[in-house]
Amino acid sequence: MRALGESCRTIARAPGEPFVRVIDQTRLPKELAWAQLATVREVASAIRTMVVRGAPLIGVTAAYGLAIGLHADASDAALEEAKATLAATRPTAVNLRWALERVSKAVREVATDARAEAAFREADAIAEEDVAASRAIGRHGAALLREVWMRRSGAGLPDAALRVMTHCNAGWLATVDWGTALAPLYTLAEEGVPLHVWVSETRPRNQGLLTEWELRQEGIAATLLADSACGLVMARGEVDCVIVGSDRTAANGDVCNKIGTYLKALAAKEHGIPFFVALPSSTLDLSAPNGASIPIEERAAIELTTLPDVHAVNPAFDVTPARFVTKLITERGVCDANAADIARLHPTEGRTATTPERAS
Amino acid sequence: MRALGESCRTIARAPGEPFVRVIDQTRLPKELAWAQLATVREVASAIRTMVVRGAPLIGVTAAYGLAIGLHADASDAALEEAKATLAATRPTAVNLRWALERVSKAVREVATDARAEAAFREADAIAEEDVAASRAIGRHGAALLREVWMRRSGAGLPDAALRVMTHCNAGWLATVDWGTALAPLYTLAEEGVPLHVWVSETRPRNQGLLTEWELRQEGIAATLLADSACGLVMARGEVDCVIVGSDRTAANGDVCNKIGTYLKALAAKEHGIPFFVALPSSTLDLSAPNGASIPIEERAAIELTTLPDVHAVNPAFDVTPARFVTKLITERGVCDANAADIARLHPTEGRTATTPERAS
Repeated sequence: MRALGESCRTIARAPGEPFVRVIDQTRLPKELAWAQLATVREVASAIRTMVVRGAPLIGVTAAYGLAIGLHADASDAALEEAKATLAATRPTAVNLRWALERVSKAVREVATDARAEAAFREADAIAEEDVAASRAIGRHGAALLREVWMRRSGAGLPDAALRVMTHCNAGWLATVDWGTALAPLYTLAEEGVPLHVWVSETRPRNQGLLTEWELRQEGIAATLLADSACGLVMARGEVDCVIVGSDRTAANGDVCNKIGTYLKALAAKEHGIPFFVALPSSTLDLSAPNGASIPIEERAAIELTTLPDVHAVNPAFDVTPARFVTKLITERGVCDANAADIARLHPTEGRTATTPERAS
Repeated sequence: MRALGESCRTIARAPGEPFVRVIDQTRLPKELAWAQLATVREVASAIRTMVVRGAPLIGVTAAYGLAIGLHADASDAALEEAKATLAATRPTAVNLRWALERVSKAVREVATDARAEAAFREADAIAEEDVAASRAIGRHGAALLREVWMRRSGAGLPDAALRVMTHCNAGWLATVDWGTALAPLYTLAEEGVPLHVWVSETRPRNQGLLTEWELRQEGIAATLLADSACGLVMARGEVDCVIVGSDRTAANGDVCNKIGTYLKALAAKEHGIPFFVALPSSTLDLSAPNGASIPIEERAAIELTTLPDVHAVNPAFDVTPARFVTKLITERGVCDANAADIARLHPTEGRTATTPERAS
């Protein structure tokens, strides 16, 4: 968010305040506006209606939501109710459950009158760690993408821009700052690497417009195209690599991400284009053996069409099998999308909070 | 168009009238309205702005456009000017050039005062042949799809609907009647085969809404979904076959069709789902050796977004390589998507009108 100022973040809390301010993403790209979330109900609604979105930011927002709830009522019963309310907002992004579990654990042994403060401290810590993780993903991913760019330079195109395709929004709008899939691009831009980004519209919620806006704020060239057009530009040789985020990645490296990711992975494979997935390790769900065990959110058909009498379905995510993923990029480094290499880099992540939820 | 009446067609002319009436497809699915086209300029505009669309219907409309022009001025110069105006409307659908060439040829040796009448006769013939071709495609395609359905029945699902995915609109709205990709479905429905059709939205012009509306008129169950969601439903095993139309098919069987077709073909291949392409032989361009020689229309970015400052591209078609096509279905029968089998069934088609246009 360099363009909006060093201290600007997608979610912020002034010291001592029992509420948070977030960028209202439903009003972007037309207007940069902020919303104040001061109750569990407001936080849950903001997550459900996608005022805030993106797995990492959903996690951080939910963490603050629990703290906000504890500020009003710090009893065990209220804690459980707030947790259940927040957990029910969206089923796929595992960060939501991970963050709620982490805040719950941090306050469990704390006296009731100190719980809210402890919860806000933990939420602040999660937010800070998210920024650090995004920054690290940016560094690790930039090294990987620079190799792709060097091969292009080596092919006699020294001044040619690295042509990257992404999907949905996995930039700073999806995190507290920097982003996941877009963080490496911001790092490369700082290093002076010329970039051009293909941004797919991402129907039905059109998060591609968020990405296009975000990249424009950062001065990075971007071109919007229909989701359906991504195969054509790959076939034309106009894409050097694809990089996307993830809402949940299974132990075997299967990647659950915004609906449409899978079709891009199929096309990338067909055309020999590297397909990278950038994610904080909080997005790993090592208790999910593979993509089939990840719940796919079905959202309201009205997001797709408001016409009466039309039967529509609106699944929000799909699963890209690990064999289509060239590399995973987390804050720990770069690894292959397989159980052994993921476990090598992330021996302990995501083994706790998620199992009960998946059974529901 | 059984639902709208046996004699109802997407384009119609009363005997002796020097103009045509067409369904205004820009007003569907909200409203079924008709537009009258009485000048070359009106016909060209209707094709360009997609008041009429679909390769076969574009061809028929252009044929009538030339006759309408000759009614106003039957000179050689006026003929050439009208032909050039109409040919320039859309570059990809080869039927446009084929139909213009056919009408030109039919009137070339005719005395000036009899040219308009001869041209209308030829346009009427093209329209009648389109209906007959669509009906024949329906029969040939139905036999093929019935085999897919029988395999499903054989697997112990005797009452299960045949689950078909299509893209864009290749129904009666895209032809004079019956359609190409949808014609086999109408034939199967007449035969009592239960059907369910997955209809992709088809951004940016949303022709999926036309297909959903058309199928609803015919009482066939359909579900709308985002273009991006097509990979997921195939991966879930919810699609028995894919059938689409074509705007131009090359001599080697490469299929140019609405943008997004290629991604569906990739996913169908990945999941072992038959991928059929239905087209009248007027859509074959045997002078195009392969898909790379087919011009891809780039439409205005404003179809994708009206936001200022956003750079967008809007290619309207893509090419599906022949190896992804299980069978081609034309009015002559079913063939493999390769040069030898296409030539066996279509020894003379599409070798005349198209070469000069591709050079431009």
